[in-house]
Amino acid sequence: MTITPSGIWKDIETIRQESPLVHNITNYVVMNTTANALLALGASPVMAHAQNEAADMVNIARALVINIGTLSDPWINAMFTAAARAKERDIPIVLDPVGAGATPYRTKTARDLIHAAFPAIIRGNGSEIMALCETTATTKGVDSGSASDLAIDAARKLNREFGAVICITGETDYIVSQDAMISIKNGHEMMPRVTGLGCTATALCGAFAAINPDFFMAAAHAMAVMGIAGEMAARTARGPASLQLNFIDTLYQLSETHIQALLRLGKA
Amino acid sequence: MTITPSGIWKDIETIRQESPLVHNITNYVVMNTTANALLALGASPVMAHAQNEAADMVNIARALVINIGTLSDPWINAMFTAAARAKERDIPIVLDPVGAGATPYRTKTARDLIHAAFPAIIRGNGSEIMALCETTATTKGVDSGSASDLAIDAARKLNREFGAVICITGETDYIVSQDAMISIKNGHEMMPRVTGLGCTATALCGAFAAINPDFFMAAAHAMAVMGIAGEMAARTARGPASLQLNFIDTLYQLSETHIQALLRLGKA
Amino acid sequence: MTITPSGIWKDIETIRQESPLVHNITNYVVMNTTANALLALGASPVMAHAQNEAADMVNIARALVINIGTLSDPWINAMFTAAARAKERDIPIVLDPVGAGATPYRTKTARDLIHAAFPAIIRGNGSEIMALCETTATTKGVDSGSASDLAIDAARKLNREFGAVICITGETDYIVSQDAMISIKNGHEMMPRVTGLGCTATALCGAFAAINPDFFMAAAHAMAVMGIAGEMAARTARGPASLQLNFIDTLYQLSETHIQALLRLGKA
Repeated sequence: MTITPSGIWKDIETIRQESPLVHNITNYVVMNTTANALLALGASPVMAHAQNEAADMVNIARALVINIGTLSDPWINAMFTAAARAKERDIPIVLDPVGAGATPYRTKTARDLIHAAFPAIIRGNGSEIMALCETTATTKGVDSGSASDLAIDAARKLNREFGAVICITGETDYIVSQDAMISIKNGHEMMPRVTGLGCTATALCGAFAAINPDFFMAAAHAMAVMGIAGEMAARTARGPASLQLNFIDTLYQLSETHIQALLRLGKA
Repeated sequence: MTITPSGIWKDIETIRQESPLVHNITNYVVMNTTANALLALGASPVMAHAQNEAADMVNIARALVINIGTLSDPWINAMFTAAARAKERDIPIVLDPVGAGATPYRTKTARDLIHAAFPAIIRGNGSEIMALCETTATTKGVDSGSASDLAIDAARKLNREFGAVICITGETDYIVSQDAMISIKNGHEMMPRVTGLGCTATALCGAFAAINPDFFMAAAHAMAVMGIAGEMAARTARGPASLQLNFIDTLYQLSETHIQALLRLGKA
Repeated sequence: MTITPSGIWKDIETIRQESPLVHNITNYVVMNTTANALLALGASPVMAHAQNEAADMVNIARALVINIGTLSDPWINAMFTAAARAKERDIPIVLDPVGAGATPYRTKTARDLIHAAFPAIIRGNGSEIMALCETTATTKGVDSGSASDLAIDAARKLNREFGAVICITGETDYIVSQDAMISIKNGHEMMPRVTGLGCTATALCGAFAAINPDFFMAAAHAMAVMGIAGEMAARTARGPASLQLNFIDTLYQLSETHIQALLRLGKA
């Protein structure tokens, strides 16, 4: 099970041909940019959050993306309703636990969603992934490894308990399951200065999971595309706004040649 | 009653001079881009959705745009309150029935709004317009014409029952009333890859209807401006994000010369 | 107490080094663009509005920005909760009374927030600032000065009663306290054609107030940066969308040399 340019490209071609409908219950900040990223990649995004239609919208979708970035009680109710219907229909759920660890409300909501929904993929930064893991040892006074080692440990525990593929994104992206790990070194240091590119990475996981039933490879392909498109976008960016613009345009233009030339994996 | 470059230009000049206030109760995804489109054209957008101020905001507006893209019960209540006040004040209401047909909640909300508000203009794609029409024959087993013929039939029925001018947008845009139809062939194939350009078309209908009491011509002028600006924007676009950026800049720069050179009408 | 390029630059360097967390309860239209402006400047934005976590989020923030642009009752409740916690923690509150004067709901909410929260800085246009001031004489039949004189009078009254530094933004920006006033003449006439640049000015006040305890200078520095970056952005803008893009990129690139070359003060 390895990631290859041709494997990534095959998934992109399928997304462009099939335009899978991806239902997003996501945050206000990134709705426009993640919808545009999904469209530029070739998927069909729908953004809808009302309890009254959550299940009906899931009925016509091929993946459900749940992002708790600007959560509130009515939205959380819709997330659980949509997730329950997605489980019944056996379509993949992708979870972005934005800000888990920052407030008890976020941490609890993210953990409750994992218990209820058993997401196919969870994507967050290292501290979010560690916050999800109820049994992670605190790092205080522990000299047992780097922050990313601790996050990878947390990811393995989450995978063991809930079966989700875990993406830990940062300077290097780690895609973690019980018995496999891929690390991807693409991307650009300016990307964290654009709001919501992490949320975009999560949304792209939804598009890939919609058409590739191997969720580990789907997540890895999504992270590779994020990093490569971000790198290409940064070449002519004069700042974060032109980076965001170039990023969407690059998703639209992306070719197999780009992926072959630029994919950079870390040591497994 | 024909559409001419000079008629379109006269309306644009009026919008630029009078900066009509257009009150939008619209979806989260497009709030920023539709506000910017209205500003670039020369109108004054306000986005406000609270039940507590819906009527007060309508009191200072010259048109009301209702878009159900990310609907929920509190917003629907505000839509009805705002619509009732708009009827009392006799200012035009423009409705975008986003996703009508996709879920019962959307279809019912859109139909209820039409029954209560009698919009001046309704803009949607063909399937949305057909979903609004309760008596439209299903297409199953019927070999009675193309999808756009069926949508135009639905538009005529809606116009007969509710009086609204109907815009059906797609590769060709159709503006339909009981006894007239204009078709406009401007636009670019990349436009559907930008989220919310349909919603922008609806918002522009609000600006034109605010200053032109002939709502059929107002709608046609809005569609012509959308298509022409989209075409101009696509010339130097490298993807959907630069298309969106160029589109807003083009609305700001649009001159009568551009319209004269580019307006392309279909057969009536 | 004067504004100097080196004073502005010192604050920018501090923001870039310390990346202060700025908690925003703001409107849907500008969430994306204000988050990006804060990131481009070097601050760390968080957007969160749930009553359930408002106090917890304030606990980890260094400034609170409250913007009533798309207000509704649940959001107002969170604004008061967050403001109360910010007062307890003694972190600065910045208020943007968007649309005060346009509807009673907005005027009342903005005034109630001022009474409850005693913001460090209030930023609005002249008519919003006048609407906040319950005792401002109406302008009807009064030939007692220009609109900006009346707004400055209102600002002085608000400062006397509530202690807030008041920014009145427009062609000239006025930063007003009881015994001092700075006026800044930077900016570009196209800026009002971009939705939410006023809200961005408010958000930047949050970043500067987070690291500079002299809120009068913090507000003046924020307004100077807005105007200078807007002016630089306009140089190559072809319309409002490229102006917005250039503006964010310029915030990211801004150097002391730019500020030295471009800062233009009015008469005090």
